[in-house]
Amino acid sequence: MIQRMTGRLAVTYHVRSDAASIEARAQSIAVEQSVEMPLDAIDDPIVLRDIVGDVQSIDRLDDDRFVVRIGIATATIAHDAGQLLNMLFGNTSLHDDVVLHDVTFPPDVIVNFGGPNHGIPGLRRRVGANHRALTCSALKPQGLTPDRLGLLAERFAGGKIDYIKDDHGLADQPYSRFGDRVRACAAGVARAVQVTGHPTRYVPSLSGNLNAMRQQIGLARDLGIDCVLLAPLIAGFANMQALVAEFPDMAFFAHPSLGGAARIAPALLIGTLFRLIGADAVIFPNYGGRFGYSPDTCRQLAHNARATDSTMRPSLPVPAGGMTLQRTPELLDFYGPDAMLLIGGNLLLARERLTEATAAFTSAVATHDYR
Amino acid sequence: MIQRMTGRLAVTYHVRSDAASIEARAQSIAVEQSVEMPLDAIDDPIVLRDIVGDVQSIDRLDDDRFVVRIGIATATIAHDAGQLLNMLFGNTSLHDDVVLHDVTFPPDVIVNFGGPNHGIPGLRRRVGANHRALTCSALKPQGLTPDRLGLLAERFAGGKIDYIKDDHGLADQPYSRFGDRVRACAAGVARAVQVTGHPTRYVPSLSGNLNAMRQQIGLARDLGIDCVLLAPLIAGFANMQALVAEFPDMAFFAHPSLGGAARIAPALLIGTLFRLIGADAVIFPNYGGRFGYSPDTCRQLAHNARATDSTMRPSLPVPAGGMTLQRTPELLDFYGPDAMLLIGGNLLLARERLTEATAAFTSAVATHDYR
Repeated sequence: MIQRMTGRLAVTYHVRSDAASIEARAQSIAVEQSVEMPLDAIDDPIVLRDIVGDVQSIDRLDDDRFVVRIGIATATIAHDAGQLLNMLFGNTSLHDDVVLHDVTFPPDVIVNFGGPNHGIPGLRRRVGANHRALTCSALKPQGLTPDRLGLLAERFAGGKIDYIKDDHGLADQPYSRFGDRVRACAAGVARAVQVTGHPTRYVPSLSGNLNAMRQQIGLARDLGIDCVLLAPLIAGFANMQALVAEFPDMAFFAHPSLGGAARIAPALLIGTLFRLIGADAVIFPNYGGRFGYSPDTCRQLAHNARATDSTMRPSLPVPAGGMTLQRTPELLDFYGPDAMLLIGGNLLLARERLTEATAAFTSAVATHDYR
Repeated sequence: MIQRMTGRLAVTYHVRSDAASIEARAQSIAVEQSVEMPLDAIDDPIVLRDIVGDVQSIDRLDDDRFVVRIGIATATIAHDAGQLLNMLFGNTSLHDDVVLHDVTFPPDVIVNFGGPNHGIPGLRRRVGANHRALTCSALKPQGLTPDRLGLLAERFAGGKIDYIKDDHGLADQPYSRFGDRVRACAAGVARAVQVTGHPTRYVPSLSGNLNAMRQQIGLARDLGIDCVLLAPLIAGFANMQALVAEFPDMAFFAHPSLGGAARIAPALLIGTLFRLIGADAVIFPNYGGRFGYSPDTCRQLAHNARATDSTMRPSLPVPAGGMTLQRTPELLDFYGPDAMLLIGGNLLLARERLTEATAAFTSAVATHDYR
């Protein structure tokens, strides 16, 4: 017997269908996500056996939806994160009856992609926090000059926050060039660190094409920065994969921007896939904030990001999006200490008392008694 | 009065809401897609005036949806195609009550992005077809060896087809490396062209990160190839933008993979945005095939791709996805001659009679009497 050329990813889709049609629909997804042509037109037995997607199971989910599991050949992915997305959901994303729900990866795929270079342990080490939850805030609004962003960064750091990320809208705009902004914010943080003694980290946001992002990381590294933020769905999965490999000293924060446009379950996209391609921290919309994610979605997402049943380092879940200082105890109990709370706008409302509000936040996290 | 720093993109969203909530919801989208923080926390009057999104109009669409038009500041985009997507729909994509419907660009944005380098005239010139519709097919299934793909290419070209694209699943897999495949397919096409005299073009599919795609284009160019295919949502908009600028001699075909269903209107995403960032041809799922796009959607998409009320060159609409030889007359009447019909699997069903089936297709297109 000829050795099979490839293992399979087990990919689950939620498919809206009636019972009479689901078998044919499942088979059509298996074809669409592999050879994308009538099987009758294929005369190569190896392709039919080892490349065509195979329907592994169909189970009823609720009144009008089924869970369809399809085996996608590992060999079609070729260790390319962009191609991974293409094979998981490329054409099927164009069908509005299907949601990409989950993926189980064979061990060799996980080893090949590798996951985070730093993960939770590396992010804890950077700020000297071994056990407690971590804290984060965001520099905004876009439109401020670099100097004003630098002053904001100094005030946040004055409250001993762990990480200060750029708003993901901060790019390389004429009123605030990446280089000017990063220099001003790094300097602002450095001034505060001299006072507080807490090693607050500044996390600049990358934008543009791969070359531009590479130059931005180089510039940041020259200023002593060791964390960056990017949005994988905008940057391109393969480009994030490349940056993670090229800059192993950098910790990568992944932003969910554009994550909703293609109907991929958030727990899979942000928790599993962002981790797989190397995100050390994954930012996501927390339940009860400005976005509609449920507590169950957030719990599953955090679980996927930091599950220890994998050879990958755990990725740090970072709930965000309309969070408030008042909710800190609730969220610490919900996520536990292996998480980083991100509060942006709610702290910025304190205006000239920003440092005090930030100190209240970091102190609430540091002194929390977990239920 | 201080000069305003920026013009505005007029961005329309379709928002599911009741009448009592729509004003507040529209305002929250305007904030989310610009400064992403409470306006009360902003003390910079320039930011409030020139950067915060402004709700320009709200109109009822149907029983439970409204058309909301928001002005997004041009300056926030900074000529970066990735940042364009980020500002149009980044966080709002995570809200399931909103669809990104349309964008009107100020002239300077269109000039800055530039659109296609070749467009419809350039794609006509390559194959010496000045008036008729163009024809296209696809090399598949993935899993075939380079030699077998090369033979398929030769057979398609033997039927005088205009363009032969790689299936978008063909990447750089171990069983069919990009270089081996492109050499074999270019050679296959060249053999046929010597016989037919028709200048059939081979369009290889790019994959991987920006560096990899750049190397792939270089390799293709060395073989005399002057067209390539990529999926902008997988490659990253900014990376496509960079390639279009770096390789002005290449024509770019854009594939809709990962385009999602319904969250970004297809006519906008594929017809307008792919064109804006330089797609000479835009492939999209035709109505009545394997995908659910309506005739109206396809008509609007084709209109956006080739509308002449713009300084951009027109982009060639390429309907595809489960099309059949039998439907050729209907589709030619529907799209008119400024289109390229793409039939893949249906031709491949002819197997050893592939050249004859292809010849029937190209002849049907060449001799069609438009209604």
